[in-house]
Order: sequence, then C-alpha cells, then structure tokens
Amino acid sequence: MPAEVLEVGLDDRSYPIYIGSGLLGDAALLLRHVPRGRVAVISNTTVAPLYLERVRAALGERLALVKILPDGEQHKNLATLASIWDALLEARCDRHTTLVALGGGVVGDITGFAAATYQRGVPFLQLPTTLLAQVDSSVGGKTGINHARGKNMIGAFHQPCCVIADIDTLATLPERELAAGLAEVIKYGLIGDRPFLDWLRGASAALRARDPAALAEAVRRSCADKARVVAADEREQGLRALLNFGHTFGHAIETATGYSRLLHGEAVAIGMAMASEMSARLGWITREDVAAVCELLLAAGLPVVPPSGLDPQEFLDLMAADKKVAAGRLRLVLLRALGEAVVTADFPPAVLAAVVADFTGGSPR
Amino acid sequence: MPAEVLEVGLDDRSYPIYIGSGLLGDAALLLRHVPRGRVAVISNTTVAPLYLERVRAALGERLALVKILPDGEQHKNLATLASIWDALLEARCDRHTTLVALGGGVVGDITGFAAATYQRGVPFLQLPTTLLAQVDSSVGGKTGINHARGKNMIGAFHQPCCVIADIDTLATLPERELAAGLAEVIKYGLIGDRPFLDWLRGASAALRARDPAALAEAVRRSCADKARVVAADEREQGLRALLNFGHTFGHAIETATGYSRLLHGEAVAIGMAMASEMSARLGWITREDVAAVCELLLAAGLPVVPPSGLDPQEFLDLMAADKKVAAGRLRLVLLRALGEAVVTADFPPAVLAAVVADFTGGSPR
Repeated sequence: MPAEVLEVGLDDRSYPIYIGSGLLGDAALLLRHVPRGRVAVISNTTVAPLYLERVRAALGERLALVKILPDGEQHKNLATLASIWDALLEARCDRHTTLVALGGGVVGDITGFAAATYQRGVPFLQLPTTLLAQVDSSVGGKTGINHARGKNMIGAFHQPCCVIADIDTLATLPERELAAGLAEVIKYGLIGDRPFLDWLRGASAALRARDPAALAEAVRRSCADKARVVAADEREQGLRALLNFGHTFGHAIETATGYSRLLHGEAVAIGMAMASEMSARLGWITREDVAAVCELLLAAGLPVVPPSGLDPQEFLDLMAADKKVAAGRLRLVLLRALGEAVVTADFPPAVLAAVVADFTGGSPR
Repeated sequence: MPAEVLEVGLDDRSYPIYIGSGLLGDAALLLRHVPRGRVAVISNTTVAPLYLERVRAALGERLALVKILPDGEQHKNLATLASIWDALLEARCDRHTTLVALGGGVVGDITGFAAATYQRGVPFLQLPTTLLAQVDSSVGGKTGINHARGKNMIGAFHQPCCVIADIDTLATLPERELAAGLAEVIKYGLIGDRPFLDWLRGASAALRARDPAALAEAVRRSCADKARVVAADEREQGLRALLNFGHTFGHAIETATGYSRLLHGEAVAIGMAMASEMSARLGWITREDVAAVCELLLAAGLPVVPPSGLDPQEFLDLMAADKKVAAGRLRLVLLRALGEAVVTADFPPAVLAAVVADFTGGSPR
C-alpha cells in the first residue's frame, strides 16, 4: 500500500500529511522533513519500546537527544514540559533543532508546545502512533498542556512541518485506544461529512478488526476533513470550532474525573451523545437520529453515558469555564442534522441543565 | 506635545506605537486598542504604586484583574509566569481577554509570553514605563522568560496589538535605569543610523537631564529604527540579528553574574564595548572609533568593562550556549564602521578569546 499524501494549506506554513504503512523506518522521508540541524525525539514509556528503534535508525547521526516521558494524560502538565526544556538545554540543542513527537496525542501536544516555546520556536514533526493522534491531534497546530483548572488551558498554535501517520502502529494499539480514536473519526462524519458517516456505519467491524485498508481509509478521510477546516480557519475564529463537537461536554467529564478514568476519545463520545440529545430536545434532529449516533458509538466500542457520581452543578460550572465561552455566554456545537453541525449560544440554559442532570443522574442545585 | 504615532508593518499583525506625554491616563486611546472582552493588567511592585491608578481609571469596568509581580530580572522565570496563568484562570479570564503589560522589560516580556500561551494566545498591550522597554523590548514581539541555563531561552514571538510609550514615566526612573535604556538607544546609532549616532553625541547631557523633547526624540528614532528592522525580518532570520549587537557578550555577563548585579542595558553596554574592541582587532574599525564608542557610553553613565572576578572560560562557554549559535558556530554582531554592523561567524576564535581574557582580566584555561 503506497503512502497517500494530503496537504494542509496554510500559505507559508503549509505542510504534508503522509498516511501509509512502513513509514516510521523510511529514512529518506523523515530526513526530507528535518529542515536542518539536529533532531530531538520525544516519546513515552509505552511507545518508545515499540517504535523508537526504527526512528532512531532512520535519523542516524542527526539524532541529538531522546527524551522519554511518562505515559498518560495526567502527565501533560507544566512539570513534564519543563523537563523537556531542561533536556534540550542540557543537550545544548540550538534553535535549529527539530523536535520529533513519537507517540499519541499527549506526546504530540506537549512536544508541539515545547517546540513553540523553545528559544522562541523551533520546527517539529508529528509521528502519531495512535488512531486519535493520527486523525485529530497531530493535524492543525494546536499544542499545549493541561492546568488543574482545565484541559489545554495553556498552549499555542504552532504548526508541524510534517505529519507522518504510519498505520502499522495501530496494530499494537490497545482496544480502548482504538475505540477512542474512532470517536474522533465518527465526529468528522457527524459534523460535516454525511457520505463518510454512511461509510462508517458499514465499516465498524472492519475497523475494530484493524483491517489495514479500512483503517487507512478512515485516517485519510478524517485528515482530509480536518485539513480543510484548519486551512479555512487556522485559529478557530469560526468554522474550526465545529471540530469541538462533543468536546465541551467531554472536557467537563475529563476534568471532573481528573483526566484518569476516561480516555479523551471516550469522554468525547459521551459528549457527542449528550450534544446529540440536546439537539433533539431543541427539535433540531429526531429521536431516531440520536439513536443512530449512539448505535454508531456503541458499535465502535465507546461509552455514551458519563461514569456515575458526577455532580451536575460542577459539570455545568466546568462547562462554563471552557475556552469557547465568549462574553460570558457558553457556545456549544450542536447538530442541525446528521452531517451538519453549528456553533451556537442560542439555547435555553434550562435545556442544557436538564440534559446534564439526566446524564449524570442527579439534578443541579 | 502631541503624541507621535509610528507603525510596525507586519501585514495582519501590524500595530501602532504611540509616543508622547499623558498617554497612560488617556482612556479613549487605551480602550481603542482593547479589541474586546475584559482586561488583565500585569505590573510590578515598583511601577504599580506610581502608575496603576491612572491606568485603572482609564480602563474602568473593563478591568477584570490586576496582577502585581515582584520587581527584577531574577523573577522573569517559570514560577512567575505560572503565577500569571493561575491568576487569569482563577479570575475566569476567557480567550478574549487582553493582557496589559505596565512596567519595564521584564513585565513586558513575561506578560507577552503569558499572552502568547494563555488559552493558545490572547491579545496584549505594551505600556512600557522604562526607557529600555520604550526603545527596545516593547517593540517587536519577542516574549519569554529566563532559564537557569540562559536568558530568554523559553519564549515565543507574539506581537502586541499596540505599544503606548508615555514619556512622563521616565521622570521617575532611577538614574541607572535611564542609563541602561540609553545603551539600547546608542545601539541603534551604532548598528545602522549614523545621523542618529551623531545627534546622540550632542544630546547626552539633555537626555540625562531628562529633557522631555530630547527623550521623545530618542524614543521616536529608536522605535522607528527598530520597527523598520522588525518589519523586514520579524523572526530574526537575518537582518534582525543586528539588533543583538553587544548582546551575546552581554548575556554571558548577565548569566555569569546571576542576572542581579547588572541591569540588562549595562551588560549590553559592556558587550558593545567588547564587540567594538573585537571589531578593531579584526581591523574593521579604528582605535579612535572604539574610543568614541566608549566615550558615548561613559557619557550616558554606562560601564564599559565587566565586573571583576568573571572566569574567562566560563564566559566563552556561556557565549557558545547563546541562541545565535548556528550549526555549532558562534555568530557575532560586529562593526564594519560606526553606524554599520554585520552578523558574522568569520573570525578567528583566538581573537574572541583574547578580547574576553583582556576584559575579564584573566585568561581562558
């Protein structure tokens, strides 16, 4: 299967996305996208034992530093970021060093932010090894870390110089992580790509069985959808906010559960179910539509209700602290139809409160 | 004296610099440059008692938060930056909040970096209250913090939406800080503005006596020179590096002395004397030129030799760790003539070592 190439069109910051098999060990491909100078690879304790050696072999003597982070969203914080800065300075990496993120979304986000802030910005390459990172977080230049008061509260827009999605890495991905990635894949269908959504309905079994052709197709169409949105609205002034479908609910769930009980994609899946339910209560989509959304999520192995024990008032407060709040009004991404999302602040707060109360099994104070 | 307006031309990131008297209390001017949402003012323990009230009055109910930092370069670090992030999140500042830096270079650099990284970037306004900040650090979008291993090692390019230089604030500036600002003023003359350099030779007394017209002229011409360079080379790929004249030497002095014994401008003055001496030893300028540089610096109340006790080998090592190192070769800004600087890696390392040895009074191991 030859590599496919997509382009994220951002004028002088445009970059290619390669999707295919055997790409991590492709020395010519990797080196072609290291502009100059030395390379620092950032990975984690789970991914490094599996894939570091082939990347190390491909980079050869350009490799200046390997920094292995602890695995997990709870380490996407300032202390881990500072440990990357320290390692780069200790190895005397200059501002022509290229950082390479080898891992999932956490490694990509924190490495990207380290690249955005090291000596006022150095280039970086994304080598995403999870489905979630391949279809979502590696593309679009959002980088950052979490804060005790919220997810991704500290960060920057910093575009990679290249994304290399080697679908071979999906073979070793734990079941739950594969499903978490599928949540974002399903999202692209729901918010703006009805034909893709219809394809996905028939592809759940093949995707969960890790059929390479099905996975490559899911990654390719997801990246194409995301690249189009990012090219039109790099800094999320408008259209790009649609990509947050399910995320305002999902972030509240992640923060309330301390980023440890659920994977990001699982929280987003629950969030999409909640946003769909809310869209139905506003009369925008039908009950059958909500059922179809939940069916697709469940077929992908994803949850559609939050873990028990969440406090509904805390849930609403966390949503109100979201980055997408504008002038004190919470904006949500909701569905006008399956395959058509809108960003809106135009809903009765009581409808939101009722949805949160019903999904958490409590009622706000 | 009406305010003068200069423009930093950077396409969609262009912004005005206002220079004049009574500007800090000009509510219409300030509010015109706060795009939307609320405002968080960041200042320090020295500046806030002097100027916060007039800014507070001008901003009125748009003001959401005032954060007062400890004063001094030794606080331009990660802990202080994190305290700004914490305060913004605690006050529930959203991503439409504008940060306002009220103070000198440290406040401006760290506030700018907080703005670059808070919720992936918010707008910020520079209200520089020192000569150094008015003529240099507030213009051009360099933001950041220091690291134990070097000055400004962590940071980002993030342009302000406006710079308002109220020269009234220079009246309360301590003698040493005024002189430190004059170091950067003199730098513009030395690197590329011979007419300005000639004007400065006759203006030392008026500037040190804080004659408002002389100060306004010095700020205006410095900002005009800097704006031209920044517009041509925002991210320091070439021309902008000339602005680092004296800085590679100066940063080594600052790091070696722990950022506490010397003001930045004083270290830069010593660095310019050392760079001039080195230029003379390479045969590029005359002994008389070096004497003229030192005379001008001394007339401004600036030092031209480093404090005693610096280790020459450590000095050279610190220079080698500078951000301007490319492919392992140290590049320096040197003078081809008074009023004409060049960036070059083309010098015998022994000449640099000899200059460092002579200025530190020791000799490298």
